[in-house]
Amino acid sequence: MRAETAVAPSLARIAPQSGTSFKLRAGDLLRVYDPLGEQVADLFAFKDGDPACSLSSGRSIDYAGKIYLSTGAVLYANDSRAMFTIVADTVGRHDFLLTPCSQEMFEKLYHWQGHHPSCFENLCCAFEPHGIRPQQISTTFNIFMNVAVDADGAVRVLPPTSRPGDCIELRAEMDLVCGLTACSAEQSNNGAFKPIDYSVVHAAGPSA
Amino acid sequence: MRAETAVAPSLARIAPQSGTSFKLRAGDLLRVYDPLGEQVADLFAFKDGDPACSLSSGRSIDYAGKIYLSTGAVLYANDSRAMFTIVADTVGRHDFLLTPCSQEMFEKLYHWQGHHPSCFENLCCAFEPHGIRPQQISTTFNIFMNVAVDADGAVRVLPPTSRPGDCIELRAEMDLVCGLTACSAEQSNNGAFKPIDYSVVHAAGPSA
Repeated sequence: MRAETAVAPSLARIAPQSGTSFKLRAGDLLRVYDPLGEQVADLFAFKDGDPACSLSSGRSIDYAGKIYLSTGAVLYANDSRAMFTIVADTVGRHDFLLTPCSQEMFEKLYHWQGHHPSCFENLCCAFEPHGIRPQQISTTFNIFMNVAVDADGAVRVLPPTSRPGDCIELRAEMDLVCGLTACSAEQSNNGAFKPIDYSVVHAAGPSA
Repeated sequence: MRAETAVAPSLARIAPQSGTSFKLRAGDLLRVYDPLGEQVADLFAFKDGDPACSLSSGRSIDYAGKIYLSTGAVLYANDSRAMFTIVADTVGRHDFLLTPCSQEMFEKLYHWQGHHPSCFENLCCAFEPHGIRPQQISTTFNIFMNVAVDADGAVRVLPPTSRPGDCIELRAEMDLVCGLTACSAEQSNNGAFKPIDYSVVHAAGPSA
């Protein structure tokens, strides 16, 4: 067991196997930290005031010409508008192929019986106060998730390469409603459930 | 130039750079043919009567554990229900990573100026009579599209491996509203614009 790191004052902590939602204004910087290492944070976003406009894995991969997005890459919405730009990234390996872990995933892939906490359920709960329904939550940008694609197309979920304190920084390119989790799946964080930290640096001033 | 093949009586033909929509009942078989070879057909679908339920690349790849889906694979909806099962496939290489080609794609990737026909526009028009808005059309199942993913994550659009007469057959697992195109992008069909043929075999009887 690693000792839990202290939470810096400006950071908000997402408890293990949970999620949260928050708004960003265009120009705000979202920093997502892996405080203990080898943990995953699923991110999804809608345009504030226009939930028909949402994050699109397919457009982002198409326009980037690659499946692994890191510093300099833009995350696009379904209508091809820029939602985020990755402006810093100490890890360089994130997933944008897979939907968030869900009750159905645990049942289909791991024959789980009974309730299992999941990023999808946590995102549904986090977005619900914003009037967003579960079916509007599509493929998430899975920060720190390490998914290999073999030459034959097989997908393998590997332990994240993130170490304690690693961080990705995304600039909001429009006003956004965001959902963010500390992942609930044994397979994506090497069997451990850990927290995720984040901070928001407002375009006009210091962090909040 | 290859000579254009005859259209068998039971087949419907989608003209080059165009699209169509149609309904399937659960159990119906949709056969999509590449009559001339090296052409791509983008497929998207909604549950009939419940357009909040739509095709999900992320769920399908996750549950299959691979990005290249062929015979035996299930295409899932965003709510994890099965939409299609691939029951036959003479090609074995299709794409499920990329959104349909769009005006924005031609501008961003190829610096196109002026209008360019696109699968996205053709799907928007095809779905519009069903009350479906453009932003509801997500990542398509791009039949016969040949997309390689390199070890570093780079995505390369290669000529389709489909030959004249090749076919994929999908069984509808629920009642569906489908959109299907003959692709408009130079890059996905090796520089040629060609038609796509399809037929529907109803669960209860012969083809219609």
